[in-house]
Amino acid sequence: MLDQHSPEGPRTPGTATRGETVPTVPPPASTAADAVDVTALLERGRTLATPVLRAAVDRLAPPMDTVAAYHFGWIDAAGNPAAGDGGKAVRPALAVLSAEVTGAAPEVGVPGAVAVELVHNFSLLHDDLMDGDEQRRHRDTVWKVHGPAQAILVGDALFALGNEVLLELGTVEAGRATRRLTAATRALIDGQAQDISYEHRDRVSVEECLEMEGNKTGALLACASSIGAVLGGADDRTADALERYGYHLGLAFQAVDDLLGIWGDPESTGKQTWSDLRQRKKSLPVVAALAAGGPASERLGEILAADAKSSDFAAFSEEEFAARAALIEEAGGREWTADEARRQHTVAIEALHAVDMPDRVRDAFTALADFVVVRKR
Amino acid sequence: MLDQHSPEGPRTPGTATRGETVPTVPPPASTAADAVDVTALLERGRTLATPVLRAAVDRLAPPMDTVAAYHFGWIDAAGNPAAGDGGKAVRPALAVLSAEVTGAAPEVGVPGAVAVELVHNFSLLHDDLMDGDEQRRHRDTVWKVHGPAQAILVGDALFALGNEVLLELGTVEAGRATRRLTAATRALIDGQAQDISYEHRDRVSVEECLEMEGNKTGALLACASSIGAVLGGADDRTADALERYGYHLGLAFQAVDDLLGIWGDPESTGKQTWSDLRQRKKSLPVVAALAAGGPASERLGEILAADAKSSDFAAFSEEEFAARAALIEEAGGREWTADEARRQHTVAIEALHAVDMPDRVRDAFTALADFVVVRKR
Repeated sequence: MLDQHSPEGPRTPGTATRGETVPTVPPPASTAADAVDVTALLERGRTLATPVLRAAVDRLAPPMDTVAAYHFGWIDAAGNPAAGDGGKAVRPALAVLSAEVTGAAPEVGVPGAVAVELVHNFSLLHDDLMDGDEQRRHRDTVWKVHGPAQAILVGDALFALGNEVLLELGTVEAGRATRRLTAATRALIDGQAQDISYEHRDRVSVEECLEMEGNKTGALLACASSIGAVLGGADDRTADALERYGYHLGLAFQAVDDLLGIWGDPESTGKQTWSDLRQRKKSLPVVAALAAGGPASERLGEILAADAKSSDFAAFSEEEFAARAALIEEAGGREWTADEARRQHTVAIEALHAVDMPDRVRDAFTALADFVVVRKR
Repeated sequence: MLDQHSPEGPRTPGTATRGETVPTVPPPASTAADAVDVTALLERGRTLATPVLRAAVDRLAPPMDTVAAYHFGWIDAAGNPAAGDGGKAVRPALAVLSAEVTGAAPEVGVPGAVAVELVHNFSLLHDDLMDGDEQRRHRDTVWKVHGPAQAILVGDALFALGNEVLLELGTVEAGRATRRLTAATRALIDGQAQDISYEHRDRVSVEECLEMEGNKTGALLACASSIGAVLGGADDRTADALERYGYHLGLAFQAVDDLLGIWGDPESTGKQTWSDLRQRKKSLPVVAALAAGGPASERLGEILAADAKSSDFAAFSEEEFAARAALIEEAGGREWTADEARRQHTVAIEALHAVDMPDRVRDAFTALADFVVVRKR
């Protein structure tokens, strides 16, 4: 279990540059975690959680069961079975792994994995509607296909179902797990409120952006990383340390995501080129570039302020977005964000120090963190 | 504790007729419950719950705290303090009363009262948006004033807060209470799904209407009537019986509400004349009239079928709605619904038989049931 980068260590720039297809953030040096089969870890989480998740969703009254099945990618808009891109399934992998911290079987973490997935998908349904996002994972979003009322209603139902799946265990541990899940859900909602309010502001500080991303991404990954342990009877100190791991892993993940949102390859991300710039998102590279000072930073500030008032924004060419991306990079926003991903990765790994667990489990947590940070575009 | 009307007893028509200002449903014969000061019971629930509710809402991050305060009527749209019509506060009164079933102090029920109010208001925020309702209690609804995104977000936040208020008690009883609250919340959501789907159907059976109303109104009143007892350590049998009381009380309440939705005095209800007819709601008097058979029932069916296709519906005169209301009454829909309110009231009171509790508490439950069913228009 190793962390090559201390949080206070040198902040070396990300080595990747625009147009490359190599990972944006350089991988950590090789470690024992390299021997871990991450694909198998992800597959285990998916295999254990998916049948329980589907059974939970099947409890919903029609037509909510169908709408939810569409959202999860199990059926298409016409109601026919679909292959379903369930995503990377990092959260279920973490939840079942965290049960093993206490010596429990991975299965003990399954209700936690399912509850976290239900809450995550509740937030996707509502956020897509609030943000007016029409596509998710290359498919029309639920509110586009089934209307806003179903997006609200099925989101609510998944939220309730998440609590139900835990509370019906009827144990003291389930009550503690639900309390932590509720705290994470409140953070998710706070993060979405911050995200919406930041859209209407000219400037957002780096600290505000990190707080928002911690709420939107960190809190639920923190819950996923600890909920299996809580269900397995871990004490609060252990659960808190695992939450710290997950929280900072979430921030590392989000920093990488913010890099991909500007410089990602549309083929891999499934989004348009310069996606976050098109949406005028105040993501980490942007706020870091604006906070950096210097000529490129100032020029970027002027351009973005003009963009905010521009009615021609929607008709901007590839070149105009490319020019903005180049300024962000010149001001240091790209490098800072790549560094930030590594700093958060380091803090995540360090949090594991505080927890006594089998080496095999520790290596698996480390390998999952490496996977999240160096994932391909 | 008495029930004058057995469920199988004679189904006497409601004595009230259109245009009267007397109660729609005749009051039960005088009983020991008449000596109970219902106003004081309601005031006690309000006084105990409101400060805790306000403290919980104050935890929300800006601007959600402000939006929620507007929804609860504590401030106006401009942000100035408002008197706040908090409604009748039957649910908080029931929740604190139910704590006394176990011999606990009414204060023991307060977190339950607050949690139920939070979940109730979550559902109002989302339902108003889904249904496009622009007014609630003589004020613009949240989505009209603060936009759809805030209505979704603050609804989500109140839902989460409801669980949080219970779970932070950290007791086994709180876990059990949260599980019951979650089941009630799922029923609320199911009821709203049914309500939406019924709008698109020509015919709804009386049974379907009762099931929908049981989900939308009965389930949460059931939870309110038992949650204090659960927090006070009541066993499941006691809690289940109290839930039955609250569930049937909710159905009685809804039957009265459906009568008021057609024949209520706009001055008291705060709604337009023939409110539910204008919204083409398939409420109990309508579905009962359609199910009754006979000339008036058939004529009503033809007219409503034509209305459903009519593009002039919005411009209908008072007289046209009055004619529909008269047909519903002639077909027996009004009388059946008034009887149904009394039948549900009777079943609610009977459910109390199964629970051992102080006479004073039993009389108070009975008095609250009488109040709900014979409330003035």
